[in-house]
Amino acid sequence: MIYTPTIQPPKNAPQLAITRRTRSTPFSSRVEDFGVQAYTIYNHMLLPTRIRGVEEDYFHLRSKVQLWDVSCQRQVELRGPDAARLAQLMTVRDLRKLEIGRCALAPICDQDGFLLNDPVAIRVAEDRFWFSISDLDILLWAQGIALGMKLDVQIFEPEIWPLAVQGPKAEDVVVAVFGEAVRKTKFFRFDNLDFRGHKFLVARSGWSAQGGFEIYVDDAAIGLQLYDALAEAGKQFDIGPGCPNLIERIEAGLMTYGSDITRADTPLEAAMEQYVSLDADIEAIGLDAIRAVAKRGIDRRVCGLMIDGPKVPLNRNPWPVKVGGKQIGSVTSAVWSPRLETNVSLGQLAIDCTPVGTQVTVQTPDGEFTAKVSPVPFL
Amino acid sequence: MIYTPTIQPPKNAPQLAITRRTRSTPFSSRVEDFGVQAYTIYNHMLLPTRIRGVEEDYFHLRSKVQLWDVSCQRQVELRGPDAARLAQLMTVRDLRKLEIGRCALAPICDQDGFLLNDPVAIRVAEDRFWFSISDLDILLWAQGIALGMKLDVQIFEPEIWPLAVQGPKAEDVVVAVFGEAVRKTKFFRFDNLDFRGHKFLVARSGWSAQGGFEIYVDDAAIGLQLYDALAEAGKQFDIGPGCPNLIERIEAGLMTYGSDITRADTPLEAAMEQYVSLDADIEAIGLDAIRAVAKRGIDRRVCGLMIDGPKVPLNRNPWPVKVGGKQIGSVTSAVWSPRLETNVSLGQLAIDCTPVGTQVTVQTPDGEFTAKVSPVPFL
Repeated sequence: MIYTPTIQPPKNAPQLAITRRTRSTPFSSRVEDFGVQAYTIYNHMLLPTRIRGVEEDYFHLRSKVQLWDVSCQRQVELRGPDAARLAQLMTVRDLRKLEIGRCALAPICDQDGFLLNDPVAIRVAEDRFWFSISDLDILLWAQGIALGMKLDVQIFEPEIWPLAVQGPKAEDVVVAVFGEAVRKTKFFRFDNLDFRGHKFLVARSGWSAQGGFEIYVDDAAIGLQLYDALAEAGKQFDIGPGCPNLIERIEAGLMTYGSDITRADTPLEAAMEQYVSLDADIEAIGLDAIRAVAKRGIDRRVCGLMIDGPKVPLNRNPWPVKVGGKQIGSVTSAVWSPRLETNVSLGQLAIDCTPVGTQVTVQTPDGEFTAKVSPVPFL
Repeated sequence: MIYTPTIQPPKNAPQLAITRRTRSTPFSSRVEDFGVQAYTIYNHMLLPTRIRGVEEDYFHLRSKVQLWDVSCQRQVELRGPDAARLAQLMTVRDLRKLEIGRCALAPICDQDGFLLNDPVAIRVAEDRFWFSISDLDILLWAQGIALGMKLDVQIFEPEIWPLAVQGPKAEDVVVAVFGEAVRKTKFFRFDNLDFRGHKFLVARSGWSAQGGFEIYVDDAAIGLQLYDALAEAGKQFDIGPGCPNLIERIEAGLMTYGSDITRADTPLEAAMEQYVSLDADIEAIGLDAIRAVAKRGIDRRVCGLMIDGPKVPLNRNPWPVKVGGKQIGSVTSAVWSPRLETNVSLGQLAIDCTPVGTQVTVQTPDGEFTAKVSPVPFL
């Protein structure tokens, strides 16, 4: 699919057309009142990608605290007698030990072991699961399977709009609103906490390396009150709207499904082997296929690269990576890091080129530059 | 889901963040060189929505001819022994009479009869079907069903990027490139026509009421040559890039899946009864449920409304429609028609309010205005 490998971003920065189909969120008005600069569409919903400027957002996130409208992290809920069976069928990670109150990164694969999604799975109750999905209609995958197999399970997208609080001051802000108990919530665990008489599922999680929480807002009206209460409580820390930040997430090695990892990859090429229960005796779609890949070994893998030269443009198509003039991989996300004063990027390389320090060249839209495989996170 | 019914569009017109995940097309560079003003994301791919300005595009489309990059009309291909069975399972329209060379609007529903999609189905060969889908991952629905039912069928998204030629001069332009034979292609039929030694599937179809063709480009490199040849041949008719136009499509009564019709509707509320084979003896998901709806009758239905007052803003959430202060429906797409000199819109109303001429009020973000049910198309 690399038909235009080095196309430049459009010169005139097209706007996003916003309609009912590109769903707005309970928090859109707040983000827009502040002045969001750029949106993307994710799971058919608005997701801010730039508030003040990518670099300004980056420094603010690393030093202060941000409110992220990540409503687009849609939940696929499974409920009923066959919920646990279907949840396990859907992920190659053993869910038998997933207790209520825990979150688990749970790769969803097709029967050939290729990645359909890298969601966080949550067991809300014994017979009730949520998959907090990345950008693909996993709802239809689950419903198609259940229909074909005649499973006894309800599958739907509940009205939940996650709101993240991220940054070094996130805990102080969330404590100010939900109370001291939240300090005891461990990473990737959740509690049900009270705000003005409404219980919110609050997890210590989020798509940055700066720490923070994700609040699963299930009521738009009180959710907006919560947003404003968090904004008020965070004033002393210079809180403001934010969003997943391109620089921060690349530096942290957070891969985007659809950009850095796709359905062309199994979880093994995607460096997600720790989330695949290769030895578990479970019925999981794609697990046998991944076992076969594990047995014969992978020939490429995601990794980080530092790219020399001036600031790279945004990359909208994979950029070829070469050694000795021969393509051995591609860069899929890249950006200038103002802190590291170089370009940081994620991509996939032939397995023998993945050791840290390997020298390669990257063909960017601005020309070819030398690059070096880097440890991830880039720190 | 009407949590913010009358929210205004953002004041500062946010840009679209373009990444690998928001897939570019073989024609993106051409559209951007011309200077596209706005994009949306549709099936995880860029779709231009405004080239010169909505009104400028409208008049150009109605009088000249446009090249539309509708690559985002992704195909779901079914191929193999069970392809015909799965194709029929997937749509409530009887496909037994769908000959090779024909296109058919074929609603896809879930088991409760609710709309998942309103694609055009094409029978490419005896055991080979394409669904040209609107914005939802029907690929996963088909694959989930096939996996659950253990069907013997390949299901995939082929590398096809449809290119539409639309407008009153479309036939002349397509003839100049593909030859006179194309004049004989009837509406919703296709032929395989030669351009520089490559056969293209060319259908007389497209998402406007101005007439034209859709070319199913299956090779990016020669597809770009074709784009340039069409642009050259169309110079005498003032050809230029275009896209589905908000004014033209509302005037024509073309409904957008995700905006005007959604999974909350069966094909009956969506005024698609002519595409539902209620009496056919076929195995089709959702057909029994729709028969039950047909038996008891629908209580609401899509229709057109002319809204009085000044130009309405773009509507991003359904606007309540009222009679005597009571909500009886909503408006889902609306725009000022410079030709009709009024606002034209599509929405859904309680069935007793759908007769042409019914007087209602519409609550827009700019206030409440009187409106009247109008015939569709608005002409």
